[in-house]
Amino acid sequence: MLHTQRIEGLRTYMAREGLTQVLMGNPININYFADFGAFTSDRATFLYVTGDRAAVLCSDVIGYTGLEGMDVVYHTDGDNVCAEVAKVTDHTKPLGFDGGYPAKWLLPLREFQAASDYVLADRAINLQRAHKDETERQLLREASQMNDRVMKRVRGIFHDGITEREAAAIISQMFVEEGADMPGWCIVAFAEGSADVHHHNGDAKLKRGDTILIDMGSPRKGYHSDMTRTFFWKEVSDYQREIYELVKKANLAGEAAVQPGARCCDVDAAARDLIAAAGYGPNFTHRLGHYIGLEEHDPGDIIGGNTDPVEEGMAFSCEPGVYLPGKFGVRVEDLVIVKADGTAEVLNKDNKELEVLSD
Amino acid sequence: MLHTQRIEGLRTYMAREGLTQVLMGNPININYFADFGAFTSDRATFLYVTGDRAAVLCSDVIGYTGLEGMDVVYHTDGDNVCAEVAKVTDHTKPLGFDGGYPAKWLLPLREFQAASDYVLADRAINLQRAHKDETERQLLREASQMNDRVMKRVRGIFHDGITEREAAAIISQMFVEEGADMPGWCIVAFAEGSADVHHHNGDAKLKRGDTILIDMGSPRKGYHSDMTRTFFWKEVSDYQREIYELVKKANLAGEAAVQPGARCCDVDAAARDLIAAAGYGPNFTHRLGHYIGLEEHDPGDIIGGNTDPVEEGMAFSCEPGVYLPGKFGVRVEDLVIVKADGTAEVLNKDNKELEVLSD
Repeated sequence: MLHTQRIEGLRTYMAREGLTQVLMGNPININYFADFGAFTSDRATFLYVTGDRAAVLCSDVIGYTGLEGMDVVYHTDGDNVCAEVAKVTDHTKPLGFDGGYPAKWLLPLREFQAASDYVLADRAINLQRAHKDETERQLLREASQMNDRVMKRVRGIFHDGITEREAAAIISQMFVEEGADMPGWCIVAFAEGSADVHHHNGDAKLKRGDTILIDMGSPRKGYHSDMTRTFFWKEVSDYQREIYELVKKANLAGEAAVQPGARCCDVDAAARDLIAAAGYGPNFTHRLGHYIGLEEHDPGDIIGGNTDPVEEGMAFSCEPGVYLPGKFGVRVEDLVIVKADGTAEVLNKDNKELEVLSD
Repeated sequence: MLHTQRIEGLRTYMAREGLTQVLMGNPININYFADFGAFTSDRATFLYVTGDRAAVLCSDVIGYTGLEGMDVVYHTDGDNVCAEVAKVTDHTKPLGFDGGYPAKWLLPLREFQAASDYVLADRAINLQRAHKDETERQLLREASQMNDRVMKRVRGIFHDGITEREAAAIISQMFVEEGADMPGWCIVAFAEGSADVHHHNGDAKLKRGDTILIDMGSPRKGYHSDMTRTFFWKEVSDYQREIYELVKKANLAGEAAVQPGARCCDVDAAARDLIAAAGYGPNFTHRLGHYIGLEEHDPGDIIGGNTDPVEEGMAFSCEPGVYLPGKFGVRVEDLVIVKADGTAEVLNKDNKELEVLSD
């Protein structure tokens, strides 16, 4: 099925970027614009979009169903894929590619004079994808509601001596029970493990006074969820409390900075400046957030360099953190969608006040 | 861990292709040459190889372990990935990329004059990967032994009225029981469904006289298996028998054509000519086979256009088929490794004589 409105949106962004033709190879992009179950294969599938055409180019042996009524150009196993693409493209104009388009089907296009130049079309494609339509917003809400339900249950699974791996296995399965497309992913980090941003769940055993960082999500109906909460086990030190309150304030400040006219970098700065002012700037080692939708990390970040405005329909994470190597770390993360009035709809309703858990 | 011998092999193929520097972005390639658990992320990880250097370029926040003792160049979230790459590359020489290297980190390299030209290095990389070392050969044998064990059990799961989906669910789980890394994939195609090369398992119910085509596999310890057998349910017609014997003969002819001096296209032709001579050439709609290893489809095909010689250590599928739309299809597939004497070691020992199954 061709998503005509999304294609029209892309054309608007293409025009803004001076692009007349775009070739996409990433199945996620292809299915976003023309949903027929495109998948990654060593056989090529592309979506070619111009001002007045949206054609699927694919191998005839892959056997897609759902292409009925669409403009389809087939190639077969023996064909040179790049030669076939060059039969379709406008050789006199630059050709734009999506970011994931693979080198093997890009570089040889030059032999066939497929275009006058080869450029990135990511900006046009990603701007369109960044602005979620109402269908997508509803799917994102449902996915985060699921994540909230799981996080509520997570509070009840801990006991002295449980390992990170054991907790992660329980949490992962909860996603299936709550309607996820697949078992959930989760980072479960105890004590000094929580100071590692991309911690691998290990055999650390939970003990009194530990920080418990839970970063988790799973797609539901193809749309992703992603939330982090940080708890404390049986007791909390003044130092842990100080850092927790700081990170929570930064999370709220980031969400409150979503306002008409604000840019992505402003949202990042609202949270980051607060952490820096408290003297923990070097301990907040990553971007404030990432876009989200059909991918857990949709292309685009809430980060210092991104001067794009936050606009209606954009969905992203707000996830400040402070990491104290060898001690502990705290991260608090929600997903938000920018509302029509330019402010943030926070998708996660789960409590963010400091919680000390116990059996 | 750096696989020094594989890097040395790559350098030999690079020299043959006139390449002095290669940049890889596909985690499968990276982990093949330098096994540290590289994964796909919106943050960049590359392996850069020259005649005297093998360096990992990666984001400092991804948190890889296993990089100890290796040459690592880190970049951080705010950096321009392509600018960072250009600090490492030789600007005066062409830079070769692996096939999956994404456009978003390729096209902008030109702004930073990262190289004198941008070319595909797939030939060098894929030739090295195509020649399996002894460790890999043993892993491929074990994976196919697992596949044989599952196929033996598959013969016992059928009954009148079982659907393709039901059978597929049982088979998929058997892979877990037999030691696979994950539930297996399988195509289960009954009757006219078997005439569709990429059949989607459906709700067709098994009935007397049906063809049963089973194409299945799963990785074990990271190395893939892939085998097809075609059975008949309770009875077999003369037409089904004729096609079965033809396809089996083509499978054996393909395997026998693996001989010193033979090229990939010769192996394809040995099977294909036999099917064509019987008048079914147009019904054998795909390549004879594909390379296999860390991927179910490693880069490289046993196909008409591939004039590369079959050489010691190469592993690929031999899977001729005849598809009669609206009627039935037959495919018989084994995996083979080319032995030191230039002939084929057939990894699948499962019976290929015609079998009529019943409860």
